[in-house]
Amino acid sequence: MAYEFKAVRRVEFSETDMAGIVHYSNFFRYMETAEHGFFRHLGYSVVMDQFEPAVGWPRVHAECEYRQPLRFEDEVEIHMLVSEKKSKTLSYLFKFRKLNGSSPIEVARGSLTVVCVTKLPDGKMAATSIPKEFADKIEVAPAELLA
Amino acid sequence: MAYEFKAVRRVEFSETDMAGIVHYSNFFRYMETAEHGFFRHLGYSVVMDQFEPAVGWPRVHAECEYRQPLRFEDEVEIHMLVSEKKSKTLSYLFKFRKLNGSSPIEVARGSLTVVCVTKLPDGKMAATSIPKEFADKIEVAPAELLA
Amino acid sequence: MAYEFKAVRRVEFSETDMAGIVHYSNFFRYMETAEHGFFRHLGYSVVMDQFEPAVGWPRVHAECEYRQPLRFEDEVEIHMLVSEKKSKTLSYLFKFRKLNGSSPIEVARGSLTVVCVTKLPDGKMAATSIPKEFADKIEVAPAELLA
Amino acid sequence: MAYEFKAVRRVEFSETDMAGIVHYSNFFRYMETAEHGFFRHLGYSVVMDQFEPAVGWPRVHAECEYRQPLRFEDEVEIHMLVSEKKSKTLSYLFKFRKLNGSSPIEVARGSLTVVCVTKLPDGKMAATSIPKEFADKIEVAPAELLA
Repeated sequence: MAYEFKAVRRVEFSETDMAGIVHYSNFFRYMETAEHGFFRHLGYSVVMDQFEPAVGWPRVHAECEYRQPLRFEDEVEIHMLVSEKKSKTLSYLFKFRKLNGSSPIEVARGSLTVVCVTKLPDGKMAATSIPKEFADKIEVAPAELLA
Repeated sequence: MAYEFKAVRRVEFSETDMAGIVHYSNFFRYMETAEHGFFRHLGYSVVMDQFEPAVGWPRVHAECEYRQPLRFEDEVEIHMLVSEKKSKTLSYLFKFRKLNGSSPIEVARGSLTVVCVTKLPDGKMAATSIPKEFADKIEVAPAELLA
Repeated sequence: MAYEFKAVRRVEFSETDMAGIVHYSNFFRYMETAEHGFFRHLGYSVVMDQFEPAVGWPRVHAECEYRQPLRFEDEVEIHMLVSEKKSKTLSYLFKFRKLNGSSPIEVARGSLTVVCVTKLPDGKMAATSIPKEFADKIEVAPAELLA
Repeated sequence: MAYEFKAVRRVEFSETDMAGIVHYSNFFRYMETAEHGFFRHLGYSVVMDQFEPAVGWPRVHAECEYRQPLRFEDEVEIHMLVSEKKSKTLSYLFKFRKLNGSSPIEVARGSLTVVCVTKLPDGKMAATSIPKEFADKIEVAPAELLA
């Protein structure tokens, strides 16, 4: 059973904007770096085509609170924690910590709720139960880590 | 006094992902299309270097709820509404409507809080009062539009 | 028969980088704005699933020469011209002109070669002839425009 | 003296498009991952503000030839080689190799020419000589590697 994953990225030039800091939309791309690493760590891909029918994970809610800016070449740790697990959805908390500098500081905090879906014959997507063998490997993080 | 702005975009190929829909991070870029259009409509740029000292508008909170996917070449209206106005911050609500199809439908709803800052001599940013001549042109949208 | 298309964009904040100018990779996204507008203008989408089998248009070569920077809120015209038409490939020339300012100036020039493909049963892509009804609507631009 | 650098990335979901492959514009962002790693490896940042006056490195020419697609979660090595060194410009060759699979294969090949500039008092940029201490650390790669 797993409830967390840490990914580290270095801020790229193309991720900055003319204000000299990481564009706020990129934090949502950083979240996926940790989420997809978490899936891989468990032996899965977020593109789950090994199941019959195949399932996917569209996002239904995303949020981020920005405390301090990230700049070019900063090293950022994205610490993902499972905050909720329901039959068809998962929610994650993300703590962004800047690693360079004297001591790591939390620069942003985000959250994401994703839903497990299958594609219907007409091409539309419908929510479905998370495949049991995958769900069985995931648990909600301890409350003190989610504070 | 103004409290809203509508921008229209057509979904680009590069904004889609392998799931065949707009990547969720792009809704945050779409929000800025409407916000910056709002600023321009009032005669300003979000890069406010005509003031002394110059002010900028970093984001402190961003959120989006996704109801239906957007696909390549969909036409989307981003309807921005001022939801809160404080001495140093502004908050907006965004309603995303897909215009193509039989009737417009709301596919997502987002929000953004931005803070007015100046750059200190040491390069750090500090919150400051919104310049009066700009603040005087903005008001909060009627409650029924924010529902 | 058509050989050109002009699209206009306004530079977005998220397209700039910390150097204060449009990140060079975005010119390749701008090229597609014009290319896909050209396809739509002819009554098609670059996602050509009305043909049997469906065809797609992956890029095989892309190039851009940068002369002057584009900045936030600049208005840029992307002038696309068909420069070559073969049985399975199309090549385009792109002239980027900044429209704001005293007179339009060419700030960059690019090119793109795309190939018409179908998906094989094993998921791989194979080059195929451009569908005749689409090819019949396209011609190479006059030499003086390609200079 | 150094003439090459290798960076490795894993393809992210947000870098794919609805065709299921990496959007072609992202190869130009991948090039910078290797280039900036090369600079860091030599003890510099591409944001060279330690020199008086500070210098920057805008791109004047970029090119890429695409041979095979990259897909989500592929591991790609970006092998950068210095292909030309002039007083004010540097040119690089980039070989993109997909590392997963039975044996590494070259999926794309690109090139970039960048120019060393300083900012003039009026805000415009002017080409300038590459700072000697930095130039002295760089040499052109052997011809056989550039083939």
